[in-house]
Amino acid sequence: STEFDPTEHPHRRFNPLIGKHVLVSPHRTKRPWKGQTEAPVLAQLPKYDAECYLCPGNTRSGGIQNPKYQDTYVFDNDFPALLSSPLPTQRTSSEPPNPMFTSSPVRGQCKVICYHPRHDLTLARMEVDDIVSVIDGWKGIYIEEGSMLRESSSSEGHVQIFENRGSMMGASAPHPHGQVWTTSYVPDEPATELHHLATYSPPSTPPASHPRGLDGKPHLLLSYAAEEVERKERVVELDESGWVAVVPFWAVWPFEILLLPYKRQIPSILQLTPEEQEGLARIMKKVLVRYDNLFSCPFPYSMGLHQAPLPPIDPTKEVAQTHFHFYPPLLRSASVRKFLVGFEMMGEVQRDLTAEQAATRLRDVSEVHYAEKVG
Amino acid sequence: STEFDPTEHPHRRFNPLIGKHVLVSPHRTKRPWKGQTEAPVLAQLPKYDAECYLCPGNTRSGGIQNPKYQDTYVFDNDFPALLSSPLPTQRTSSEPPNPMFTSSPVRGQCKVICYHPRHDLTLARMEVDDIVSVIDGWKGIYIEEGSMLRESSSSEGHVQIFENRGSMMGASAPHPHGQVWTTSYVPDEPATELHHLATYSPPSTPPASHPRGLDGKPHLLLSYAAEEVERKERVVELDESGWVAVVPFWAVWPFEILLLPYKRQIPSILQLTPEEQEGLARIMKKVLVRYDNLFSCPFPYSMGLHQAPLPPIDPTKEVAQTHFHFYPPLLRSASVRKFLVGFEMMGEVQRDLTAEQAATRLRDVSEVHYAEKVG
Ligand SMILES: O=P(O)(O)O[C@H]1O[C@H](CO)[C@@H](O)[C@H](O)[C@H]1O
Ligand SMILES: O=P(O)(O)O[C@H]1O[C@H](CO)[C@@H](O)[C@H](O)[C@H]1O
Repeated sequence: STEFDPTEHPHRRFNPLIGKHVLVSPHRTKRPWKGQTEAPVLAQLPKYDAECYLCPGNTRSGGIQNPKYQDTYVFDNDFPALLSSPLPTQRTSSEPPNPMFTSSPVRGQCKVICYHPRHDLTLARMEVDDIVSVIDGWKGIYIEEGSMLRESSSSEGHVQIFENRGSMMGASAPHPHGQVWTTSYVPDEPATELHHLATYSPPSTPPASHPRGLDGKPHLLLSYAAEEVERKERVVELDESGWVAVVPFWAVWPFEILLLPYKRQIPSILQLTPEEQEGLARIMKKVLVRYDNLFSCPFPYSMGLHQAPLPPIDPTKEVAQTHFHFYPPLLRSASVRKFLVGFEMMGEVQRDLTAEQAATRLRDVSEVHYAEKVG
Repeated sequence: STEFDPTEHPHRRFNPLIGKHVLVSPHRTKRPWKGQTEAPVLAQLPKYDAECYLCPGNTRSGGIQNPKYQDTYVFDNDFPALLSSPLPTQRTSSEPPNPMFTSSPVRGQCKVICYHPRHDLTLARMEVDDIVSVIDGWKGIYIEEGSMLRESSSSEGHVQIFENRGSMMGASAPHPHGQVWTTSYVPDEPATELHHLATYSPPSTPPASHPRGLDGKPHLLLSYAAEEVERKERVVELDESGWVAVVPFWAVWPFEILLLPYKRQIPSILQLTPEEQEGLARIMKKVLVRYDNLFSCPFPYSMGLHQAPLPPIDPTKEVAQTHFHFYPPLLRSASVRKFLVGFEMMGEVQRDLTAEQAATRLRDVSEVHYAEKVG
């Protein structure tokens, strides 16, 4: 038998952050596609749309009128999945608790953050300063929601900042915006990550050059970032302020990206220095311009920020490391996506091109947004 | 505060089969939908399509001609995600193994099973006898793949039978067919289920009327099925041969269904009695007719069969219980789906209507397929 070549042979990779695997089938990219294609995205949007419920001055379906905001604008989701009303009392039952039918009431809050008054912009096309303002908006919500949780009886809680971009990812409006869902508990995905961060034990002493966590010990995500910066093959963008964007070794989505600090542990966005915040805005824009340029379309994705649950009281005790996941569905073109269906749902997630191939393709596109090129 | 009412208050349910939660937001079904809608499905397909690569006698893209099959037809996937060639040797490396960059070569096989020669049929519209033949086809593949795995050096392995139906679920052809991917390892999803089945400990002695597992002890999925049959509220179909179809208490997809035995533990489809096999075909058809009738369209879904890894040598030692998951994406109509995106990917899965409401709606539709109604 021949030697194992990850660019040719089917193999399985392990994701130490969540303890799951991904099946990689690099030989499969040549498969012809006869399935569903997606409708092309409207190329040019107006700067203001009278029908958009997020544009400044417009009235939302709940009847509330948006202010004529100039910067970012935060409001309560008109159809929230979580409610902030006090927790109802559990029904008293004579039956003993049954592990097969366990439910508990939860509380929380859902907010929307408009990134910019202009209807036609996206994070990729906004100025770096405007993205710095968006991060300020996230910080404000994180602080506010954190105190709301602490003031209520919640002993724990989580603030999930995310964005669904593009109709393919369930976004109901093209106006640039994200969401923040706060929960009176730590949801499964961040809970799993925090568990793996807390229980990480490096097999041997990592290189002295690798930065350590706040507790002085090796930190899974810091060591990982430091390794990726050295290995280079999966790096898409690097910002000297301390951020690196990689197609992670264990990526599931074809062009998935993990954006994380590589110089020090930053439990939440509240601990960002002004330089780090500006660097974050800069690298986000760069990554998103590469995304748009890959298939010359506004690249759809879901993006999410993982950080410390509840704004940390004592950040030096935190195991969390601020990071962003980008999960974009496109695989071959603006209209052909990857489906994570049958085998992926019933067996385990599967991808076709390797993480290294995806990173190369993202590095190879222009740094200038396709819509800004003249000529 | 008021009493907890799961039909009104946001709550979290626990799935003991995989150890994960789902956020349930029953008050959210009134939300208007302005996002993406799906293209309507072609109402009537021809019985034979010269362009279809699965129809009898046609030539596939690999150049191979299908036989003029009359029943089911099994062939090797022309673009397999797994290869049966011998495992390549791991690259020898001087570096110590790194938990952040762990990969291992895998082997396996991908097969396609055409359910029926007729291009226009689906499982919902096939005769019960034809579905019995499909189950025979699955048994054949399961036995064959199991011996292939045993003959190779694999000490473990898994045969994943599944179906992606409808272009919304990534199916590349409407011709009725499913797939079988065999792997030289147990993938994450079944491995997690088997772990939870093996470590299940009932909080108290279950009712004497509940059947026990092959080892004489309470079995998570058997006790669960017995409870659901008694409680009735989540039952969609029941077949006296020993099968029940429920919207599970912890359902994620709006109209998700779990189809499982409620009378005895059946580690794999190889242990089915002829009555159980016919009952399985009958209840599958009934469930799928209800699905199609819900929005009067060929209901898209991914379906998968979980059973014992490798055809069991000694079935009495198995903890596995044969069951089918149906994950259909539609939420409000033939064209409006549920998106499991931002919060669901970054936080935890979320649903709008409750499992009980979904079961009621599925019970309320006609038992006669909408396309068969005259007048
Ligand atoms: O092999 P098919 O049916 O063309 O492919 C479909 O099912 C596979 C297994 O679930 C997925 O990996 C693909 O993304 C999907 O399009
Ligand atoms: O609130 P939105 O943006 O309308 O809704 C979108 O994001 C939510 C959170 O990820 C999902 O639950 C919805 O399925 C999706 O359509």
